[in-house]
Amino acid sequence: MTRKHNFSAGPAVLPVSVLDELRAQILDLHGSGVGLMEISHRSQTFGDIVDSAMARIRRVLSLPDTHTVLLLQGGASTQFLMIPANLLQGGHADYLNTGTWSTKAIKEARRFGSVSVPFDGAEVGYRALPASWEDSDDVVYSHYTSNNTIHGTQFHHVPGVSGMLACDASSDIASRAMDGGRFDVLYAGAQKNLGPSGVTLVCLSERAMAAAKDADVPTMLDYRVHADKGSLFNTPNTLGIFVLERVLAWVEEQGLDALAARNERKASSLYELLDGSDFWQPHAETSCRSMMNVTWRLRDPELEAPLLAEAEEMGFSGIRGHRSVGGLRASIYNACPEDSVAALVAFLKEFERTHG
Amino acid sequence: MTRKHNFSAGPAVLPVSVLDELRAQILDLHGSGVGLMEISHRSQTFGDIVDSAMARIRRVLSLPDTHTVLLLQGGASTQFLMIPANLLQGGHADYLNTGTWSTKAIKEARRFGSVSVPFDGAEVGYRALPASWEDSDDVVYSHYTSNNTIHGTQFHHVPGVSGMLACDASSDIASRAMDGGRFDVLYAGAQKNLGPSGVTLVCLSERAMAAAKDADVPTMLDYRVHADKGSLFNTPNTLGIFVLERVLAWVEEQGLDALAARNERKASSLYELLDGSDFWQPHAETSCRSMMNVTWRLRDPELEAPLLAEAEEMGFSGIRGHRSVGGLRASIYNACPEDSVAALVAFLKEFERTHG
Repeated sequence: MTRKHNFSAGPAVLPVSVLDELRAQILDLHGSGVGLMEISHRSQTFGDIVDSAMARIRRVLSLPDTHTVLLLQGGASTQFLMIPANLLQGGHADYLNTGTWSTKAIKEARRFGSVSVPFDGAEVGYRALPASWEDSDDVVYSHYTSNNTIHGTQFHHVPGVSGMLACDASSDIASRAMDGGRFDVLYAGAQKNLGPSGVTLVCLSERAMAAAKDADVPTMLDYRVHADKGSLFNTPNTLGIFVLERVLAWVEEQGLDALAARNERKASSLYELLDGSDFWQPHAETSCRSMMNVTWRLRDPELEAPLLAEAEEMGFSGIRGHRSVGGLRASIYNACPEDSVAALVAFLKEFERTHG
Repeated sequence: MTRKHNFSAGPAVLPVSVLDELRAQILDLHGSGVGLMEISHRSQTFGDIVDSAMARIRRVLSLPDTHTVLLLQGGASTQFLMIPANLLQGGHADYLNTGTWSTKAIKEARRFGSVSVPFDGAEVGYRALPASWEDSDDVVYSHYTSNNTIHGTQFHHVPGVSGMLACDASSDIASRAMDGGRFDVLYAGAQKNLGPSGVTLVCLSERAMAAAKDADVPTMLDYRVHADKGSLFNTPNTLGIFVLERVLAWVEEQGLDALAARNERKASSLYELLDGSDFWQPHAETSCRSMMNVTWRLRDPELEAPLLAEAEEMGFSGIRGHRSVGGLRASIYNACPEDSVAALVAFLKEFERTHG
């Protein structure tokens, strides 16, 4: 077995040590005599895993005790709907439009209230992010996407806003130390930095839960229901939660600062190459480049297909850009090894030498 | 490692051969060089798995080509909401109330239209099911739960109705041959007979999809969206779909008739014991006993705790009745081996001999 250098945007590469731990629990979870996928979500054995996952989430994201943590299903796409359904209730929200995922979130929010878009990145090909913006009056919450997987941009600061702050952190959560207390809604699909697909993390502040108090929404969309039942209102994705807990254990072992430094080194080595000649054309403006998803094109677009073919042959997987924008993309989340990035940089250098 | 005899109601025991197949693909899926949880849901390798799962579902459930098959997240509980949101649109539906899950489904449906309950099993402690009932006038659809996990009852015929027919088959799907064409909506959480938790199967007839055509629902709740995108509108539970596909391969290898005969033998051996003396008090009426969940009490309720303690010690897991009703329950889905049931019957006989 040879594992490829995996640059997939999500589902994405996971730590091999976590994969080994998973394999060991499939037939017999923690010596219970029952396999991981076969054990009741109401058992003590599984309850301990949920508790540990919740505690790790609070530590890794520096969440105040007053925040509620939920582990749900349906991806960030379901949160695009649940957030306004619970919090907006006919009120007004600001949504920054910084790419495909923001656009989808805006579409859902408009069903539940009025939405302003104080920054629309479509006008600049989603290359740039705003340093600040003007809040609307009486804004219930402001929503932004902290890292834009498809266009390769990332906020490197937490915006100050006058109402509540909601953040889709699907693609950069747990990639560096953060102050979770700054967020009223912080959410992420797990399949990039937290584990496998099929688990969604949602963190809600006390005032967000208070705002949801009078929401009239179907049971499965109701934050209060999931909060009251400790995310076990119905059967959760048990295996997904197990893996998430193990990935967070790995994050805590590495340390967030060490992870952030490693992420920075990985991204810098790619951007340095891409800035080195006009053979490459990096997409995002320098000030808002993503540490998680590096996106670029070739000066000569005709060379993209041969590059992808050669890369595939050389054992690099997942560097084709998102189908909606084309070009190239290297997703280099927490679990992407520095060796993989070094190998990719060497490959790209050699490609430039032979085709430049 | 000793695996217990697992009678959990769900998540539930899975075929060991499937667990072994899963373990083999965690680090490297089908020789792709990328692990099962780490591969893009848009890759050919994963697309082939989805295609195979869809084909197996159609064969196992004898679905007409005109039916749409969806693999979603959120469990049957999310379908309690999606079905009326898509199909009811202010119209009228009949819902049989045959237990906890039906009750939850009725609660959600009432948000989207008017609901009649032509049979309410609460009056008989959910021991009985109706042989037939009177349809309401102008009913859009009638909804029933084919197997009631908590109370241990099961329909052994498909009811005839005047409108569309919707069935929650979470706990008996694929346990015997069926005519999927009879159902306009056939749905099931995977975590009993189909695989792990976190995947939901939804099958929709042509007229159900036509009825959903004008539904005004949020994107993630819209059957048309998931149908148009082949269940890949957003990132699905990829590992869950892999396991579901492998479980269905196992079902097809066994053969539905052989599985049904084995399920019948397993259930009969338990009911025979429970009918043998009034030491045991089986819950469901004889005509509607479940082949999947056998539920009973002891004449002397004081003996239930010692029985559960002894069972645990002897390597039987998951025979405590649902927390809402108490008593005992043995869930004996497809993958529960006949050996496990034989061992349980022997244990219960011995318990009766020593405590009777």
